[in-house]
Amino acid sequence: MQLILEELVATWTDPACPVARTVDLVGDRWSLLIIRDAMSGPTTFTELHQELGIARNILTDRLRKLVEHGVLDRTTVPDDARRHTYRLTEAGEDLFTTIVALRQWGERHAFAAAEPHSVLVDDQGRELPELRAVSQDGEPLSAGTSTVRKLG
Amino acid sequence: MQLILEELVATWTDPACPVARTVDLVGDRWSLLIIRDAMSGPTTFTELHQELGIARNILTDRLRKLVEHGVLDRTTVPDDARRHTYRLTEAGEDLFTTIVALRQWGERHAFAAAEPHSVLVDDQGRELPELRAVSQDGEPLSAGTSTVRKLG
Repeated sequence: MQLILEELVATWTDPACPVARTVDLVGDRWSLLIIRDAMSGPTTFTELHQELGIARNILTDRLRKLVEHGVLDRTTVPDDARRHTYRLTEAGEDLFTTIVALRQWGERHAFAAAEPHSVLVDDQGRELPELRAVSQDGEPLSAGTSTVRKLG
Repeated sequence: MQLILEELVATWTDPACPVARTVDLVGDRWSLLIIRDAMSGPTTFTELHQELGIARNILTDRLRKLVEHGVLDRTTVPDDARRHTYRLTEAGEDLFTTIVALRQWGERHAFAAAEPHSVLVDDQGRELPELRAVSQDGEPLSAGTSTVRKLG
């Protein structure tokens, strides 16, 4: 993590805000979709290129940044030094909650009522309950019932 | 919502995936930061411009898209037809969980241990517990213990 902080400290959009730092690190369309795909297991440039229909130069750029930012690990395929496998680091895997939040918002707001979509299920095939931000007492919270305490 | 679906149905990056639809609608750096700021209450072009340091043409573009996508509502300031206020729609407010997920990941991975950052608190000043995706039984889930069931 130290590498990232030293590199980026001069360029954070809003250095004191954890939302903004995350957005600086992973908050663009292709990075989020690469991370989504990597949640299904290690993947390669070719697989991502085919799955996402993303231009090769943009994919190269996003993979490089995600490795630099500590979200993906790149390993060389044993018998082919020019091919690499990308897998989520521990920090990358920890974006699971964020990906689930994006998914559930899409399910609620970006599909018509009867429109089919892919479904995230646990290892018994059951859909996940909805993620909700709650207080220490378990009360549901919203933007209206919470506040950002900024740095002095 | 119908408006959005009709407009975008031909251009979704991955139409069957709710993660991808959300990313198409709000998944870029500036949109996410505009949404973050709007969580603190209605805001204006000038306030966003000053807060984010974003170029005026990009801010104009992102605000237009967020209104078209049903995330922000634009209202004209009563005594000045050229000034507008932007506030989150109900769907926009429902991005609170996503913003909290982005924030908590940033707190865990984008700050050094003792580095200060802003804090999200409930109306009693207490920090929120960590959001975690869980199964119907309340067991913590990860990418490794869940699966995306794609459309036939």
